[in-house]
Amino acid sequence: MGTTETRTSSAAISFETDPSRYRHWKLTFDGPVATLSMDVREDAGLLPDYKLKLNSYDLGVDIELADAIQRLRFEHPEVHAVIVTSLKERIFCAGANIFMLRGSTHAWKVNFCKFTNETRLAMEDASAHSGLKFLAALNGICAGGGYELALACDEIVLVDDANSAVSLPETPLLAVLPGTGGLTRVVDKRKVRRDLADVFGTIAEGVKGKRAVEWGLVDATVPASRFKAAVLERAQALAGQSDRPATGRGVTLGPLNARESADAIVYSAVSLSLDRAGRVATLVVRAPDAPVEATPEAILAAGDQFWPLRVFRELDDAILRLRVNEPEIGTVVLKAEGDAARVLEADRVLAAHASYWLVREITHFIKRALKRVDLSAKTFFAFVEPGNAFAGTLCELALAADRSYMLNDPERPNAIHLSPMNAGAYPMSNGLTRLAARFYGTPDRVAEVLAHAGPFDAAEAAEAGLVTFAPDEIDWDDEVRLAVESRAALSPDALTGMEANLRFVGPETLETKIFGRLSAWQNWIFQRPNAVGEDGALKTYGTGRRPNFDKTRV
Amino acid sequence: MGTTETRTSSAAISFETDPSRYRHWKLTFDGPVATLSMDVREDAGLLPDYKLKLNSYDLGVDIELADAIQRLRFEHPEVHAVIVTSLKERIFCAGANIFMLRGSTHAWKVNFCKFTNETRLAMEDASAHSGLKFLAALNGICAGGGYELALACDEIVLVDDANSAVSLPETPLLAVLPGTGGLTRVVDKRKVRRDLADVFGTIAEGVKGKRAVEWGLVDATVPASRFKAAVLERAQALAGQSDRPATGRGVTLGPLNARESADAIVYSAVSLSLDRAGRVATLVVRAPDAPVEATPEAILAAGDQFWPLRVFRELDDAILRLRVNEPEIGTVVLKAEGDAARVLEADRVLAAHASYWLVREITHFIKRALKRVDLSAKTFFAFVEPGNAFAGTLCELALAADRSYMLNDPERPNAIHLSPMNAGAYPMSNGLTRLAARFYGTPDRVAEVLAHAGPFDAAEAAEAGLVTFAPDEIDWDDEVRLAVESRAALSPDALTGMEANLRFVGPETLETKIFGRLSAWQNWIFQRPNAVGEDGALKTYGTGRRPNFDKTRV
Repeated sequence: MGTTETRTSSAAISFETDPSRYRHWKLTFDGPVATLSMDVREDAGLLPDYKLKLNSYDLGVDIELADAIQRLRFEHPEVHAVIVTSLKERIFCAGANIFMLRGSTHAWKVNFCKFTNETRLAMEDASAHSGLKFLAALNGICAGGGYELALACDEIVLVDDANSAVSLPETPLLAVLPGTGGLTRVVDKRKVRRDLADVFGTIAEGVKGKRAVEWGLVDATVPASRFKAAVLERAQALAGQSDRPATGRGVTLGPLNARESADAIVYSAVSLSLDRAGRVATLVVRAPDAPVEATPEAILAAGDQFWPLRVFRELDDAILRLRVNEPEIGTVVLKAEGDAARVLEADRVLAAHASYWLVREITHFIKRALKRVDLSAKTFFAFVEPGNAFAGTLCELALAADRSYMLNDPERPNAIHLSPMNAGAYPMSNGLTRLAARFYGTPDRVAEVLAHAGPFDAAEAAEAGLVTFAPDEIDWDDEVRLAVESRAALSPDALTGMEANLRFVGPETLETKIFGRLSAWQNWIFQRPNAVGEDGALKTYGTGRRPNFDKTRV
Repeated sequence: MGTTETRTSSAAISFETDPSRYRHWKLTFDGPVATLSMDVREDAGLLPDYKLKLNSYDLGVDIELADAIQRLRFEHPEVHAVIVTSLKERIFCAGANIFMLRGSTHAWKVNFCKFTNETRLAMEDASAHSGLKFLAALNGICAGGGYELALACDEIVLVDDANSAVSLPETPLLAVLPGTGGLTRVVDKRKVRRDLADVFGTIAEGVKGKRAVEWGLVDATVPASRFKAAVLERAQALAGQSDRPATGRGVTLGPLNARESADAIVYSAVSLSLDRAGRVATLVVRAPDAPVEATPEAILAAGDQFWPLRVFRELDDAILRLRVNEPEIGTVVLKAEGDAARVLEADRVLAAHASYWLVREITHFIKRALKRVDLSAKTFFAFVEPGNAFAGTLCELALAADRSYMLNDPERPNAIHLSPMNAGAYPMSNGLTRLAARFYGTPDRVAEVLAHAGPFDAAEAAEAGLVTFAPDEIDWDDEVRLAVESRAALSPDALTGMEANLRFVGPETLETKIFGRLSAWQNWIFQRPNAVGEDGALKTYGTGRRPNFDKTRV
């Protein structure tokens, strides 16, 4: 669709922000209830060629939202419920900005939708695992991605006036899908009857008032006069369900302070080097240099410098940058360096204090960062070499890889380690541990490798099926070089499709349905002339021209 | 991708055939073991512009395969296992014909893959529910769709010679996916480890011998000298697991003898009329005109004229023709006419004799025909009018519809009926009954409507949630007309994506993963220039030119 794409991604995008820099959201606090208010600045889009009118959003708006949710979890343990609302009159949110979408490359659209889906899932993760509940207080029109944001909340309250409705107008107005989880959440999460969802998905003006409640699209409608009070009352009730600490300080998430050069990003415990000609990046994570803090008090004092949090915040940032800023990098070589014993020690600390709120947050954060790896359209190869630190939590990276190569040289000891943290702390989007996905259908083998005491050397790891190949020192260089080179020769699209299928064996969840089924269909539609062609609805919307559709049903 | 598509579908395709007309398969019998041998005639493709070399296939080859599997179930109850093999030397099957794919429109490729997937799932359905087991006897090279056919069998035996391998070369050679279920079946069904599947999916030459067994790609390899004997022995063992009758005659599936005109296809109990200008078809199914046969003996004697089998064979054919021959028809209006009491009586017969082999076959066939409706890229609206026969099994059609409209006119009685056949006989691809999918998350409502004695009038049906809308006689004409017209104004692609998401609420299965996740990614790739562009791999394969890929990872 080259002719319809007028712009590739612009200057490198940063995913780091903090409330003092928010342009689009306001975060306020009132005891256990925080309020996150959308107030999008029209002229503060990531790119200058569209205006973010009517609280419509682009990636920059969602980066702030993701940051706010993250900070609420770490910096504000005393917050137990969040009201998500808008500061604009009569408008909650108009959804993703159409003019931004119109001007975006296919890759940008896909990455944008992926990130917004991850942000919404992070809200549901906070509700499910962190006792942080969300209430969407829809004070006005709530359309498209705006309603998808509301769907990610635990409850939805809509103001009852002549104006305010919820809607998914993507299909009738733009010829695309409500692709930020919308269709899946309507039927799978809110359990709206499929025929009513079909009607809802085709009427641009949406549904309001009593009917919105009857169909299950919102939980309640409340007249404007009682809206604020009703919202607060419900938010307080949600807060009452929380198991977060009632008081106590949180942990500030400081800047990552990465050092950037033309072909590298160096963090404290992660480094990313880019070989753009070869279309390969090398991502190295490092074990702690010293024993990690071992008590809740010490972990709290260490804060964002506590190694497990620090290394995975850096990893998460590196993955996001790779996705959006390095579209032509096809393969990421994963390495882990340093003292495996220190990683295993960190795992013991995480396991011992699993019920401490901050450790719980850290563990779930690591889980989400690892999911980003699973969901990235890059090939991951783990190279396991002498001195590696693929142990326990870091071994999840090797297990997340599409393939792993482990040097088998008797002269240079080389081992990987599992820990109890591999047994359930970091489920994939499909609900399986990476070991269970690896040995899908043979749970005995999962139990066996978890029961194995001590390290696996290369021969043992290959025998146990924990690594793909274990070449000896004679073959190693050629084999890993060829693996990377031959990967780069394959079609990037076919690889994305293949990996998206092979990585998610077994059961599917709301989350995998969003990324597998819904996103895959949306990506298809994002290629179709009926949406993105010169006469397609994304191009003609707002121009006065009507779209001219190819009528073939495919 | 208009520029890359040189041909739309040709003359109307017929899905009817019989063994006397097979050009590509031979069906032979030896007691409980049948042999289905692929011997594709190069010059007998559906279209003249490609040669079906090396047992490669097109839709015509798969139509014969689907027919053979169907006939084995109905006409040969004495067959308990089927050997699937090839009559070509050193070649089992080279997969879907690349030159056919190259010359096909996007819509054709998508429909081709959908049908082949349904055929393979029909084999697995026969194994799971009908005691008919399949053994793939790979007597030579087995590539791509050939291996996907093997994967659909219960067991795979590969000849052990210097030549024969199994492979999925789509990604490395053609920049597309093994999209006839391949990727899903490799990891989900055969439980090949995901990293080994990744390797397998990228090496064009495939895997043979001991490694193929170790990786789980085949169940055994056997030297050529012992191949036939080993295959027969395994087939006999599979046959021994069957619960089909040991002897007895089957039921011949005669021709459907539809009467065709320019804008209608009229069968005995189904009629399809086409309004091509309005892009809408009306599909009418008719209740039995007389009481159906009520004993196993009478059902066997009635054979393919037994109403439940007859009406759903006709429906299945009509749906297939609509998909392939009427790509611009967007909406199908479903109607059921005749005496609902006779449908309910037929349901009582089916339920009473559920364990009789022929009734079992008929029930599973109805299930598969209904699944084709769910999986069709057409909008289905059920219109429920006075005199309708949406009862029990036929009511599944109303429940399969994206929406249903029921006339509520107290002067003209109008009712729908459920029967015990709505409680589990016809699960969707996701394993749920249509009622359970409709009331997803509220199983009590399923129990409630099933417990309801007697008919639901329009008000009751709307109240119970069994129909979408129940307009009165004043609104009816306008409302249904507007529903159809406004549907036709929407983007066909967006509708396909929306319906594919809303229809399959809840759990996913191997089957829904194939149609939802794998097919959706394949459809995306089938639009991508890296596959179908002038420099894409599907275009350059076999030309001596190398593909030139856009390197962006999306």
